[in-house]
Amino acid sequence: MSYFKVEEIKYEGRKSMNPFAFKEYNKEEVIAGKTMAEHLKFAMSYWHTFDAMGSDAFGGPTMFREWDETENLIERSKVRVKAAFEFMEKMGLEYFCFHDVDVLPEFGTLSEYQAALTDIVDLIESEMKRTGIKLLWGTTNAFSNERFAHGAATSCNPEVFAYTAAKIKFAMDITNRLGGLGYVFWGGREGYETLLNTDMKRELDNLGTMLTIARDYKKEIGFEGELLIEPKPMEPTKHQYDYDAHTVIGFLRGHGLENDYKLNLEVNHATLAGHTMHHEMVVARENGMLGSLDANYGDLMLGWDTDQFPTNIYDAVLTMYEVLKNGGIPVGINFDAKVRRASFEDDDLFLSYIAGMDTFARGLRVAANLLEDGVLEDFKANRYVGYEETDLGKKITSKNVTLTELNDYIQNIDGQISPLTSGRQEYLESVLNQYIYNA
Amino acid sequence: MSYFKVEEIKYEGRKSMNPFAFKEYNKEEVIAGKTMAEHLKFAMSYWHTFDAMGSDAFGGPTMFREWDETENLIERSKVRVKAAFEFMEKMGLEYFCFHDVDVLPEFGTLSEYQAALTDIVDLIESEMKRTGIKLLWGTTNAFSNERFAHGAATSCNPEVFAYTAAKIKFAMDITNRLGGLGYVFWGGREGYETLLNTDMKRELDNLGTMLTIARDYKKEIGFEGELLIEPKPMEPTKHQYDYDAHTVIGFLRGHGLENDYKLNLEVNHATLAGHTMHHEMVVARENGMLGSLDANYGDLMLGWDTDQFPTNIYDAVLTMYEVLKNGGIPVGINFDAKVRRASFEDDDLFLSYIAGMDTFARGLRVAANLLEDGVLEDFKANRYVGYEETDLGKKITSKNVTLTELNDYIQNIDGQISPLTSGRQEYLESVLNQYIYNA
Amino acid sequence: MSYFKVEEIKYEGRKSMNPFAFKEYNKEEVIAGKTMAEHLKFAMSYWHTFDAMGSDAFGGPTMFREWDETENLIERSKVRVKAAFEFMEKMGLEYFCFHDVDVLPEFGTLSEYQAALTDIVDLIESEMKRTGIKLLWGTTNAFSNERFAHGAATSCNPEVFAYTAAKIKFAMDITNRLGGLGYVFWGGREGYETLLNTDMKRELDNLGTMLTIARDYKKEIGFEGELLIEPKPMEPTKHQYDYDAHTVIGFLRGHGLENDYKLNLEVNHATLAGHTMHHEMVVARENGMLGSLDANYGDLMLGWDTDQFPTNIYDAVLTMYEVLKNGGIPVGINFDAKVRRASFEDDDLFLSYIAGMDTFARGLRVAANLLEDGVLEDFKANRYVGYEETDLGKKITSKNVTLTELNDYIQNIDGQISPLTSGRQEYLESVLNQYIYNA
Amino acid sequence: MSYFKVEEIKYEGRKSMNPFAFKEYNKEEVIAGKTMAEHLKFAMSYWHTFDAMGSDAFGGPTMFREWDETENLIERSKVRVKAAFEFMEKMGLEYFCFHDVDVLPEFGTLSEYQAALTDIVDLIESEMKRTGIKLLWGTTNAFSNERFAHGAATSCNPEVFAYTAAKIKFAMDITNRLGGLGYVFWGGREGYETLLNTDMKRELDNLGTMLTIARDYKKEIGFEGELLIEPKPMEPTKHQYDYDAHTVIGFLRGHGLENDYKLNLEVNHATLAGHTMHHEMVVARENGMLGSLDANYGDLMLGWDTDQFPTNIYDAVLTMYEVLKNGGIPVGINFDAKVRRASFEDDDLFLSYIAGMDTFARGLRVAANLLEDGVLEDFKANRYVGYEETDLGKKITSKNVTLTELNDYIQNIDGQISPLTSGRQEYLESVLNQYIYNA
Repeated sequence: MSYFKVEEIKYEGRKSMNPFAFKEYNKEEVIAGKTMAEHLKFAMSYWHTFDAMGSDAFGGPTMFREWDETENLIERSKVRVKAAFEFMEKMGLEYFCFHDVDVLPEFGTLSEYQAALTDIVDLIESEMKRTGIKLLWGTTNAFSNERFAHGAATSCNPEVFAYTAAKIKFAMDITNRLGGLGYVFWGGREGYETLLNTDMKRELDNLGTMLTIARDYKKEIGFEGELLIEPKPMEPTKHQYDYDAHTVIGFLRGHGLENDYKLNLEVNHATLAGHTMHHEMVVARENGMLGSLDANYGDLMLGWDTDQFPTNIYDAVLTMYEVLKNGGIPVGINFDAKVRRASFEDDDLFLSYIAGMDTFARGLRVAANLLEDGVLEDFKANRYVGYEETDLGKKITSKNVTLTELNDYIQNIDGQISPLTSGRQEYLESVLNQYIYNA
Repeated sequence: MSYFKVEEIKYEGRKSMNPFAFKEYNKEEVIAGKTMAEHLKFAMSYWHTFDAMGSDAFGGPTMFREWDETENLIERSKVRVKAAFEFMEKMGLEYFCFHDVDVLPEFGTLSEYQAALTDIVDLIESEMKRTGIKLLWGTTNAFSNERFAHGAATSCNPEVFAYTAAKIKFAMDITNRLGGLGYVFWGGREGYETLLNTDMKRELDNLGTMLTIARDYKKEIGFEGELLIEPKPMEPTKHQYDYDAHTVIGFLRGHGLENDYKLNLEVNHATLAGHTMHHEMVVARENGMLGSLDANYGDLMLGWDTDQFPTNIYDAVLTMYEVLKNGGIPVGINFDAKVRRASFEDDDLFLSYIAGMDTFARGLRVAANLLEDGVLEDFKANRYVGYEETDLGKKITSKNVTLTELNDYIQNIDGQISPLTSGRQEYLESVLNQYIYNA
Repeated sequence: MSYFKVEEIKYEGRKSMNPFAFKEYNKEEVIAGKTMAEHLKFAMSYWHTFDAMGSDAFGGPTMFREWDETENLIERSKVRVKAAFEFMEKMGLEYFCFHDVDVLPEFGTLSEYQAALTDIVDLIESEMKRTGIKLLWGTTNAFSNERFAHGAATSCNPEVFAYTAAKIKFAMDITNRLGGLGYVFWGGREGYETLLNTDMKRELDNLGTMLTIARDYKKEIGFEGELLIEPKPMEPTKHQYDYDAHTVIGFLRGHGLENDYKLNLEVNHATLAGHTMHHEMVVARENGMLGSLDANYGDLMLGWDTDQFPTNIYDAVLTMYEVLKNGGIPVGINFDAKVRRASFEDDDLFLSYIAGMDTFARGLRVAANLLEDGVLEDFKANRYVGYEETDLGKKITSKNVTLTELNDYIQNIDGQISPLTSGRQEYLESVLNQYIYNA
Repeated sequence: MSYFKVEEIKYEGRKSMNPFAFKEYNKEEVIAGKTMAEHLKFAMSYWHTFDAMGSDAFGGPTMFREWDETENLIERSKVRVKAAFEFMEKMGLEYFCFHDVDVLPEFGTLSEYQAALTDIVDLIESEMKRTGIKLLWGTTNAFSNERFAHGAATSCNPEVFAYTAAKIKFAMDITNRLGGLGYVFWGGREGYETLLNTDMKRELDNLGTMLTIARDYKKEIGFEGELLIEPKPMEPTKHQYDYDAHTVIGFLRGHGLENDYKLNLEVNHATLAGHTMHHEMVVARENGMLGSLDANYGDLMLGWDTDQFPTNIYDAVLTMYEVLKNGGIPVGINFDAKVRRASFEDDDLFLSYIAGMDTFARGLRVAANLLEDGVLEDFKANRYVGYEETDLGKKITSKNVTLTELNDYIQNIDGQISPLTSGRQEYLESVLNQYIYNA
């Protein structure tokens, strides 16, 4: 039985006008020593792809999938699993990721729900075996239910903290069982709505405690994936605690967790925090905390998370550039992106993933060329050469210097310092364009 | 000789319609155990008040002060010092703060400049003695001159790093000599314009080195003031490294400097980073890093630092609320605010400071009432009571708990957790209003 | 039978600490010649108050009202009407407003739905008679259903245009029957998601056609209320056509409709467009197009419509100031505001309306005092006096002048023009504060 | 005598790694029936290129040009003219544009200044004859001098209004004499800082009067260029009256000037107003008001006008797409862009213009291909086909329909309307990418 009329998506090259073909993503093609598939480790987001049906704050669903017509909740969830794996097979997606509630919405008592969810996970496991598709990461949803109205690990109610712990345990167990490469913490309601009623210190301490005991549990069960924190500055709460990469890194340091967690960076979260994705990538990489990516695209004219499929080539190039400099992405690239409300046909699922995958594939090609030619690296090496080659620079670089010594140096030359060289921003931007066109 | 026609500004109470009188700021009045003056430690910003003359990126000066008509640079600088002290005396401002270049613009060779600057500092010192006015903090300008085009401590040129060190040394010496309560680091060009040409790790390491050797120098000379870092997210560079309170705190932790620096928070810098000032205050206070304040106000519809005189009562109340909770502000409250370009008359200097000081004085009154009545504190204590009074909550608070234990707790009650109580945001906002009106 | 435990909310004055009492809103008190109730014409928003249950894009409902427990859709809708009128009575709200779907969600065929809706309207009418509560305005929801995925009057499908027309007709008939003071057009999906697929000219022409035939129908049925357009710049679509007041006014002029429509301004829509509400109020008033108000408050740090209850006193004062200058608000003041997701108790409905109504009542008091004392008006009259009292100014004001004449004037004095006077922004802001505290 | 070491910039094709060569801009190459030069009509901005020297609100100049070392103001201005024409010749720029003060800063009395300026204009005219370079447009600076602190045509002082008129007259005379294709009005201070002191109606009426008498003067002197208004939402004033395209069009309609003015659109002004440049282009084109372009690029993470050289290929493609649909750009494309503060070498001027010109050239190629293949146009034609081919659609399109008729149509089918088709946003974005890569 087949849920999609579209056939398997194949690579046809850059001149193809077939909408249902890759123009850039050629999975077996080797770039910089690895296949494209190995570099990119693309994952399907279960929630946006099979659960989100076009609803937004101003209106109901616009997407009505044939496989969702089954009345019974459990049966419908199983059919969705089948449809999801068929979709991944046809798209050539080798990974997926999910929250517990993505594959089965909550219902009944906790024991009833967890039993039923286990059945769905059994089916997922058998589909994984059948297809060879792997789990990128798992997570739990601790933000949608009303019990999380005041937060989860940061709730004012300790029972909610405990409930969250129970959800994390269950989801980490599933993730471990399915061999996930990572486990993600996105603090959907970990933040505040107003400081007038909030004890921020207590809430952050509790968040630190949760991350600590989750880390301990990971070790206890021998889960070998990466623990990942996903920064976001706002939405749904007015202020989310995991604001951006630097905030999270500082928080982890404050709780002695900096060696236990890496970052799962999302493009649209970066931009909501006032940063480019490139910035967040550099911060994570240079702190040794680059873990995984949520690939999407935001509308920079809009102030909320639009989670659009990534089609901006600049973001894709600069993201892949940092991935290559990092020696690869430890976990993978998840399309945390949803088809637009008005893209409600089944075909749009394919067209959107093609758009995103081709964009990242082109990004990879361009980034590999830039690195191979050393365009930016040579420029930077030359720019800071004084720190490597002069006595003064070497002292500073080695941190073996005092304010007084430096003052002496400057007084000796009475402040006469040599002219600088240009930063060449415009030139470098035009070189980037040239590499994009010529890849 | 007098530079201003306006007489000393006096407190006349809230019904006074005299523009040149305080309606709220009654310096000797005791609030919550201290005089208003002791609580607020208001400081004049030398740069905005006596150097900024209405120029902006689109036009030249609009303010032409009589005391600036002196042709000779040194003489003009001395007259300005006199005018500045007369202004502070008439305003009842007990503190001031300044950058080296505020009191004398750079010229000539380094030795010529430093010699001349020392003369000006002599004059300042004698004015301080004459009037009893004190130095809140000093700093150096390491961002205006072209040598800082690529940054100061984060420049790609090690000689610029050294030059910056020399400037810091000189300014810290001055500050120490004048008995400043603090020394501020605002990284005017410490950031990047484009990541295409930037080695962020190297630049941040160098910034850490500079802060380390400055801390060492402070100890060496026995300077007893606080070292302060002033966060700002953007402007002048596209991305400033000291983005916001959390970023700076994380950076300090990463360099082992978290006990050596406190924060100098600015309202308009907070809002440019997407935070309320209240947020930044809470972050600083709860991390033990609240040092000093730059009191101003930004236009939230605009994307740059407008440095307006603070007249928003909400910001003032919530800022003073955190100051009171902190047991006072370690350094003080500097009006890092400039009269609008179209407020070009000498009188506007007085009217603007009155506006700002009255706003903060009202803020203090309201905050003290809120705290005395325990309105917010009682609400919060009650909201989180579960963490103090239940066994479950106490275990979490003491961090003596595991994921498995918490899961057991929840499984035992099959996920049945009690209803929450409302966060009451709208009610708390209306109470805040009532306290503002009734103060 | 009673749905709410809270009793009628009464005015207790500014010192009252009873949360369930007005501190500022004293409905019968006369301010500037009219009672507060006459000035403010407060209306309940049916959708936010009785339909929105705390759901957002990241989670389900948090509010579960006893009166909603009825299983049957029609019955539940009727109970809601009863609860709504009890609420309005207890709050002293004399008006309400609603979309068709607020009082009965769509179901079945069009004829079934319209028949059922008519029954609900019968009930509303009888409740109106019973209580004396009046309809401020009615409208239709032409954005939630999937048929509006590409817009309503601006849909690419002419049948959707027709369907929208049918909905408008029905809703205008209801509004007319219930004696509404206005009928609102908010173009929930009248905009575009991407220009790559959009024929903007055609869509705007169609929008103009819809507004034209709606205006014609209004005349045909003798509806005497105001037709109102509600500007909003974004959300749900990437770009909403009715961006802001100036855009709408220009559009109306382009279609010859400027005398047929007025504006329904919303605070949070103003701020999303980068304007203060004061700005939008002045634009509307000075163009003779001030019609009605959606009173709420947005979080200026956030980029979406939060529709918070209005508690910002500055917005309230400046809005009421323009209302008074306009000689009153033609339609009224609707609280297009929803209780926060975490304010999920029934009591929060009361506390939130009290917060909003007291804020506007204080705003009215302050505005009336400012106007009575002529503080701002005298300042402005004096500022522009040259246009009223000099020959040159009078010629310009009468538009009876040429470029050459003006050049001659300036050449004659060789460009020597007299100094300006200060704009006194900081002073005026402090006066505004003083009036707020002293009201 | 030569001011630049760089030789004439030539086209070397897309594989060239010579920084001082065009890779995309091949001026004589014919695209869609015209040469690239004819399509693009690139102009040098005098102010950014020869007057801006890297200063910003936080620091002084970083650029020190050899030709500016001349002490005497008049002489220096003349040397600049020579350098400017050499630069344009070497860059292959066929147009330039300028404000009066760009070529000679104000000094002395009005008559002295205008006499001296006339001399400079003589020199410009002779350079134009020598080189064949043409004037794109002229304008006057009515915002930098302190006399414009409260605005120019919108000043509270009628003498400032008159002074502005005199400046416009003089600048329009110059522009006419030099054969400019247009005359631009950018209202640098036409806006307000605070509504507390502003009579917006009077100010807008006066602005309308100025535009009316300027239009009259244009006719009087027989100037045949286009009159252009340049929208901008903020900066320098808090609110600029010419906010965006729709606001300006509405304003012009309100003053009966819609046939006398066209728009000069700037990318960074569009984005500051919350619009894409594509949006503003469509609005202008579809209203018949597309006049000229200020080509630059803003940093969408920053809230002020950065005026960066345009290197974003998406903006360039979509802008040129609308230009082609418009049948060409009536005036031309001015690089209202400045080299970054840190790009302070003379070479950066060349590298930056190359970057911008190549980006627009590539944009032209891509846009022409898209139009030739009809990719977007066919999609749109098909999307709205119902308005052209069904009876219902034709009635709506012809505006020959009533609400009652449309209701009858829908009642007859009991609201059963056929399903829609997808908007295909993601697919269209990926097609756009493919055209960018393949051009």
